[in-house]
Amino acid sequence: MSLDRLIEKIEQKQNPTVAGLDPKLDYVPEFIREKCFDKYGETLKGAAKALLEFNKGLIDALYDIVPAVKPQAAYYEMYGFQGMKTLYKTQEYARSKGMYVITDGKRNDIGATMEAYATAHLGKVKVGKEEYEPFIADALTVNGYLGSDGIKPLLKMCQENDKGIFVLAKTSNPSSGELQDKTVDGVPVYELMGKMCEEWGKEVPGVYGYNGVGIVAGATYPEQIKRLREILPHTFFLIPGYGAQGASAKDIAAAFDKNGLGGIVNSSRGIMCAYQKQKCDEHEFAEAARKEAIRMRDEIMGEIGKITVSNS
Amino acid sequence: MSLDRLIEKIEQKQNPTVAGLDPKLDYVPEFIREKCFDKYGETLKGAAKALLEFNKGLIDALYDIVPAVKPQAAYYEMYGFQGMKTLYKTQEYARSKGMYVITDGKRNDIGATMEAYATAHLGKVKVGKEEYEPFIADALTVNGYLGSDGIKPLLKMCQENDKGIFVLAKTSNPSSGELQDKTVDGVPVYELMGKMCEEWGKEVPGVYGYNGVGIVAGATYPEQIKRLREILPHTFFLIPGYGAQGASAKDIAAAFDKNGLGGIVNSSRGIMCAYQKQKCDEHEFAEAARKEAIRMRDEIMGEIGKITVSNS
Repeated sequence: MSLDRLIEKIEQKQNPTVAGLDPKLDYVPEFIREKCFDKYGETLKGAAKALLEFNKGLIDALYDIVPAVKPQAAYYEMYGFQGMKTLYKTQEYARSKGMYVITDGKRNDIGATMEAYATAHLGKVKVGKEEYEPFIADALTVNGYLGSDGIKPLLKMCQENDKGIFVLAKTSNPSSGELQDKTVDGVPVYELMGKMCEEWGKEVPGVYGYNGVGIVAGATYPEQIKRLREILPHTFFLIPGYGAQGASAKDIAAAFDKNGLGGIVNSSRGIMCAYQKQKCDEHEFAEAARKEAIRMRDEIMGEIGKITVSNS
Repeated sequence: MSLDRLIEKIEQKQNPTVAGLDPKLDYVPEFIREKCFDKYGETLKGAAKALLEFNKGLIDALYDIVPAVKPQAAYYEMYGFQGMKTLYKTQEYARSKGMYVITDGKRNDIGATMEAYATAHLGKVKVGKEEYEPFIADALTVNGYLGSDGIKPLLKMCQENDKGIFVLAKTSNPSSGELQDKTVDGVPVYELMGKMCEEWGKEVPGVYGYNGVGIVAGATYPEQIKRLREILPHTFFLIPGYGAQGASAKDIAAAFDKNGLGGIVNSSRGIMCAYQKQKCDEHEFAEAARKEAIRMRDEIMGEIGKITVSNS
């Protein structure tokens, strides 16, 4: 099962973190931008090529120590279809380096349309007698506001194609409570959503105690993470909000079980823009990213201790 | 304001409907598929070119009687970046024919990432000294589960670039009630979301009584549409669920005010696949789509009466 593979990679690297690849052009070192603009002009194609080269440099610097990447679809869409080509090429490169790929798209719809999203990101599409992967991912983030009609096509895809999903439960942003903390018969909406995920997950069982339907639970809300872990023993957490958004390793410790399993913590800008924060030469962006990824791993592992896969 | 322009187009054509462009390859007439496969092979490019030709044929047949198109992003993503190129080219073509373009993407995220989506679909992106429209739309559908952090970057874009958004409130699918009908202090979640939209809308005021933040309200739930219209007097409704999903013109009448304004009703498969349903020659797909669009218009106008724009 897909999340089992993620857990195994986390254990191999003793590192429950994922590098978010959310590349704005401003984040890309100037020498890469200039090279691509010289070749392709100041065009969407030039921008998309620059993002790809930046991403590849980051992946090269990270793949032996970080188990997964999480490209955020918005940053690729922002450069049009050329940007979407870079999304595909980034995913392909990450996969070739053995990394687990989580596409952060927060996709949502119903029935046949959700099947189309599932096919786009987790499946294969038929064209005449041929089949193609439109985009490449091991897992996709999705929004469950529409209820199980929006999730069922994904569960089928997860079962058939060995894929996973992460459903938004409690997001990391300041206003996430406007809806998610409202209580329904005494139960907050984020718990309600979490419980639906624990139910959906039963259809995609895993061997390490966690099922194939994970949730997104923001590091910026440690109390809610603790509560979610209590009520969702078989649900894996994708945890944004560490670093740039202000949460610390302590804040996320409650997401993890006694074996150090149960979650993966994302850092995007912290890693991508490490060379800016460390004020080093921009040619050293990849080394700076690696240094930050190691610092983050060590900080989080300091809280968790050891990660042990036990096939129970 | 963007939705004012939509309302004016609806009044000009006396037609409060939008043609959904959700093109699966199976919907495309064989003669178009064969032509494109002959030229580009059974590839994603071949598929994407076939979708584009199909869409252009539909737009040619509809633009003088239907005010808007709603391409559903999922069906373009399903054909990879080549499909996204077809999304762009479809939007560009619809705009060149004077149609209002609603991209149905149900996008959602927070802060800088939501800004990236807003830029992608409603804005312009800077590349060096140049600026480009990554995709082309007058309005975008979005999911408000993350609260106002996810909406504010869009409001800014709506104000600056004359664009609109439609936020999911009550979706048309059978399981939409799992979360949306749950009550918070006696108020269902879909109403709560609707009220947030009415508030957000105040920042993008319109001249015909409706603001720039609309909602999605499914035709399959007439009671909820009626209730939403009562409590959201300044919110415009995008109404899916008519036709293929089973709702009738009577079901949506409550969405409209005494001037016949207040909503736009979507039909996707009903129009795109009209030639299959009417069992006519596939070369006549465009004429069949036009015939169905006229039938739908007449049926809905039969309930509404007349559409009168009054600048009050």
